[in-house]
Amino acid sequence: MTHPAPSALPLNLSQQLIQRHLVSGEMIPGSEIALEINQALLQDVLGTLVMLELEAMGLDRVHTQPSVQYIDHGLVQADNLNAETYLFLKSACERFGVWYSGPGNGISHPVHMENFGVPGQSIVGCDSHTTAAGALGMLAIGAGGIEVAMAMAGEPLYITMPRIWGIKLEGQLPDWVSAKDIVLELLRRHGVAGGKNTMIEYYGPGLAHLSAMDRHVLANMGTEMGATATVFPSDEETRRFLAARGRESDWQPLAAEPGCRYELNDHLDLATLEPMIALPSSPDKVVTVREAAGQPLHQAYIGSSGNPGYRDFAVVAEIVRDRQVADGVSLDINPSSRQVLTTLIQQGYLADLVASGARLHQAGCNGCIGMGQAPAVGLNSLRTVPRNFPGRSGTREDSVFLCSPETAAASALAGVITDPRTLSMAYPRISEPDKIVINRALFNAPLPVEEARLKPLQKTDNTPALPALSPLPDTLEVPVLLVVGDNISTDDIMPAGQRVLPYWSSIYASAPFTFEAVDDTYATRADTTRTQGGHAIVGGVNYGQGSSRENAALVPRYLGLQVVVAKSFARIHWQNLICFGALPLTFCHPEDSERLSQGDTIVIKDLYNQLAKGDDLIAEIPGKGTMTLHHGLTDRQKTLIAQGGVINHLRARNADAAAQA
Amino acid sequence: MTHPAPSALPLNLSQQLIQRHLVSGEMIPGSEIALEINQALLQDVLGTLVMLELEAMGLDRVHTQPSVQYIDHGLVQADNLNAETYLFLKSACERFGVWYSGPGNGISHPVHMENFGVPGQSIVGCDSHTTAAGALGMLAIGAGGIEVAMAMAGEPLYITMPRIWGIKLEGQLPDWVSAKDIVLELLRRHGVAGGKNTMIEYYGPGLAHLSAMDRHVLANMGTEMGATATVFPSDEETRRFLAARGRESDWQPLAAEPGCRYELNDHLDLATLEPMIALPSSPDKVVTVREAAGQPLHQAYIGSSGNPGYRDFAVVAEIVRDRQVADGVSLDINPSSRQVLTTLIQQGYLADLVASGARLHQAGCNGCIGMGQAPAVGLNSLRTVPRNFPGRSGTREDSVFLCSPETAAASALAGVITDPRTLSMAYPRISEPDKIVINRALFNAPLPVEEARLKPLQKTDNTPALPALSPLPDTLEVPVLLVVGDNISTDDIMPAGQRVLPYWSSIYASAPFTFEAVDDTYATRADTTRTQGGHAIVGGVNYGQGSSRENAALVPRYLGLQVVVAKSFARIHWQNLICFGALPLTFCHPEDSERLSQGDTIVIKDLYNQLAKGDDLIAEIPGKGTMTLHHGLTDRQKTLIAQGGVINHLRARNADAAAQA
Repeated sequence: MTHPAPSALPLNLSQQLIQRHLVSGEMIPGSEIALEINQALLQDVLGTLVMLELEAMGLDRVHTQPSVQYIDHGLVQADNLNAETYLFLKSACERFGVWYSGPGNGISHPVHMENFGVPGQSIVGCDSHTTAAGALGMLAIGAGGIEVAMAMAGEPLYITMPRIWGIKLEGQLPDWVSAKDIVLELLRRHGVAGGKNTMIEYYGPGLAHLSAMDRHVLANMGTEMGATATVFPSDEETRRFLAARGRESDWQPLAAEPGCRYELNDHLDLATLEPMIALPSSPDKVVTVREAAGQPLHQAYIGSSGNPGYRDFAVVAEIVRDRQVADGVSLDINPSSRQVLTTLIQQGYLADLVASGARLHQAGCNGCIGMGQAPAVGLNSLRTVPRNFPGRSGTREDSVFLCSPETAAASALAGVITDPRTLSMAYPRISEPDKIVINRALFNAPLPVEEARLKPLQKTDNTPALPALSPLPDTLEVPVLLVVGDNISTDDIMPAGQRVLPYWSSIYASAPFTFEAVDDTYATRADTTRTQGGHAIVGGVNYGQGSSRENAALVPRYLGLQVVVAKSFARIHWQNLICFGALPLTFCHPEDSERLSQGDTIVIKDLYNQLAKGDDLIAEIPGKGTMTLHHGLTDRQKTLIAQGGVINHLRARNADAAAQA
Repeated sequence: MTHPAPSALPLNLSQQLIQRHLVSGEMIPGSEIALEINQALLQDVLGTLVMLELEAMGLDRVHTQPSVQYIDHGLVQADNLNAETYLFLKSACERFGVWYSGPGNGISHPVHMENFGVPGQSIVGCDSHTTAAGALGMLAIGAGGIEVAMAMAGEPLYITMPRIWGIKLEGQLPDWVSAKDIVLELLRRHGVAGGKNTMIEYYGPGLAHLSAMDRHVLANMGTEMGATATVFPSDEETRRFLAARGRESDWQPLAAEPGCRYELNDHLDLATLEPMIALPSSPDKVVTVREAAGQPLHQAYIGSSGNPGYRDFAVVAEIVRDRQVADGVSLDINPSSRQVLTTLIQQGYLADLVASGARLHQAGCNGCIGMGQAPAVGLNSLRTVPRNFPGRSGTREDSVFLCSPETAAASALAGVITDPRTLSMAYPRISEPDKIVINRALFNAPLPVEEARLKPLQKTDNTPALPALSPLPDTLEVPVLLVVGDNISTDDIMPAGQRVLPYWSSIYASAPFTFEAVDDTYATRADTTRTQGGHAIVGGVNYGQGSSRENAALVPRYLGLQVVVAKSFARIHWQNLICFGALPLTFCHPEDSERLSQGDTIVIKDLYNQLAKGDDLIAEIPGKGTMTLHHGLTDRQKTLIAQGGVINHLRARNADAAAQA
């Protein structure tokens, strides 16, 4: 790893953090950079494949320290599969040297921040809200599972150098306005794509009154603006947060250098804010609560990594104390962690909540990711969660709003959407206890390496080893099995939901669901190409948009996918295809897309020579002539393609290392 | 209603209660008696059909007071269906004058006992554990939904007069032995059929040390012995229980008359008991915990109506306080009610549980009925629940043990099945606080009748009105569509589980699942007979055994079922078929069963005359001659058949009443 010499120009905090972790590349927005990764975070739904990838790579022990596997998504246990997933993940943690946080400990992001967050370090996680760790001054990035597996194997993380977006906060929040309202206001201003290819950096005097967990709310939901990462200075509030948890020694001050510059700028006077709310069904459909007030309410949902702090529950308890939830409203309390639950009990708040008629649920992600508490069709659910995409609640035609805990609680009492400033009570300002009980004994720490090597993975039929993937042949000759339109999402490719999610841990069991809503014959037809030379898919604009789920690349690849030709690709899916050794290509002449139909054959001869020579290659379509296709692969990516993907690449490297040891 | 004059012989308490509610029949074991019903209890999974039956009957207002609808089974809300079921049930409560206890209030049986239980009254509920109310000296019986609907419509409950089984309790339980161990010992002695056609009555000096909630454990699990009901005297403990809840005025003393007799007798010296455990997978596979000790543990599950008392959670908290659950064990805490949760918080016990590593779940039935917390295949789960039938946990090849909270907690700490007497601590004797906070405002009370009449049922596609059922024609001529073997259960006829349960509220949506594991062509074939004269089913011995679920009769009836001819019937299913206007018949000559094959036609001419004449009737099988079949219907039942079932019967009566009003 190289540490470039400090730049002559003063650096903002984002640049400092990137420079500190820069392995290769230049800090020029838009160019590929490689980052050293210190820590890794896994959740259970996507963690299973990561562990199977580590197995397939032949990894002995993870390099990122700590790496932590959280069980927070699949907590329903409607049948044996969830419990067996826990056993598999726990055994994989033992084998590879990963911390294990079992069900009941809580949501990865706040729990990680409290137990493991260290200002200045870098972290990658297979969950898009991993960005929340930026609240402590970490360089924190969400990525696809295979990228996390690579980082755990000691590889750098490759990202596009983002533009740095400085957002200056001034003033102090008025009563009844809190962190969620800040980020909703920013979403109102900039939209869900407003942070694309940027890293958000908050600074300014307004930070003095935002606790570390308030900052978590903003860093978490930077993802909703499409930002690569969000970062806060490590300051006195950060020190206080760590000290309350007995980890003051992990603190160091971090801040932008005076006189630094940002590529983008915004500023916000907190004193001017009022309660905000995102209407169904996008986080950027934001209006003031005043404008939405009076609409009837079916559910008020408190919890998730979007409002995970002790304060976010305590303020609800203060509001509903000695009152009763309105008839017909379900007030659902989802503690974000065991620690938050404990503190709520100790401070008397849990009793207030339960007495008001609220329903207390287990600690975890729960309804935020559609695992329980799904509302009735069309009835309004106010949630303190980060996202309200259609159907995410588990109900296909849902009507989910995003708001602060204050707004959710005031509305739950009134039975209609209510501006909390209209409550006839003093605003309850909550201060966290000086001493927070953190019990690391409720995690399983990594085993010593000698002991770990003796641990077998506890497998079931639902956690089979990954299939071996062969490199593409030098002469590609594949039928076009499927032609799809624009904006095909990874959800279209690999569905989620309670029906399919338990099977994500098995490539083979997931395979029959592939593309089922687009063409339910694809999976069967593709399977016949699996051992017969494979197949191609032709896509439109923005192919592979949405969730970063890597199985949307890996499962079709297993079914024989060799090449996708599209008008354009979503960035992460493009990367995932390459990681698994499939070739994503775009049309050099957009009109060529009209020439390809299902049943055509794509022939690419002399593939590796063509890749080596330049950014484009020539394909023949028998009966239809030739066309020029663009690949744009870096040398690193060409190597991955030649090796059949990153797993083969790292398995070879690990085998070499073992042979030399 | 007639109140027979007191018998000359001294009566036991069961006889007193039956006599007090006797509408018709004689108190001779084995003969049909009709009982006046005071209260009704519904849970959500089976309550939807009951409400649809009240609608189909054209009922204006329920007669049973209180009738209470609890939401405790379907709490997962994986999609919109559960939430919409709540809305439908709440609207039905408003329309018909029923109390509504929403999700979060807790499990019907303990919540009902605390809020509505009144010594001396009778109650029927569409849940087999309704018997638990016998703990307060109620005449408490579980029944099929249609029987509950009838009771709510003011009809008596028809049952077979049970034998009365006196069980004398003496002495006092030793340390570390509690109520669950008593009922497990009785299950060891008498088995799961030991209480068939009996009513269990506990008496004796040993009762003095059993609290009302301890008695709930025994009355609840009388069902596991197959008993019709279980009853306890209403004594000083009962008074104390009601007084602590501000309902001392509901108390009255009730006891067996001195010198009374029982048809069956047993006695138990509590001082001689030790911790007991039921091995997988039947509640009567009982051994001492000593004998099972040392087996490894995967899960310890605390909760359910099988151990619902505050004490049952507090004693676990005392045991795990300042200790930590063994690695690899999931200690799952399922508060039985909002009240228990509140008291656990107030007394500091919830904090102890959470600190030990236990996982806190929402208040409700949860894992006891396979709704969450399903264990891994084959790994041992110790549960304080009442039942461990195979697969009930949600995991098909489960390994569930039944035990006391003491045994579950001791085992959770050790990681292996552990006799709690080996713990190195004093036995924590828990006394309930003198004052228990009960907040009836968290229920929805019935509306005044004028207001109720204006309330529409809040229906969705998943709660459609019941189909109209026509009376059988006087000449029955139906093809045999299905021939099945012995011991076909209602589970075989109408499957449960998370996959099917949400659709139970719709006869039409449930229909395709009918008999699917037995013959997956039945539903489609039957549907074609639906408007074409119907069909017959031929069964073996014990047809319709198992769960009382009425849809196992109603759905096939909807699909055209007119007559079932079997070697013998399970009692409740036999009754359900009649209630829905289908004719259950048995072979007078058992060898005739061999003569019927799928495709044969059964012709019964002059049906109503034949029914009127005697207990048998003659059927013709074209090409195979005639056979004699037995019906054994009472006059009341003949009337139901002639009217096409009880719903038509009561609709006609309610229409008459409305016309006269």
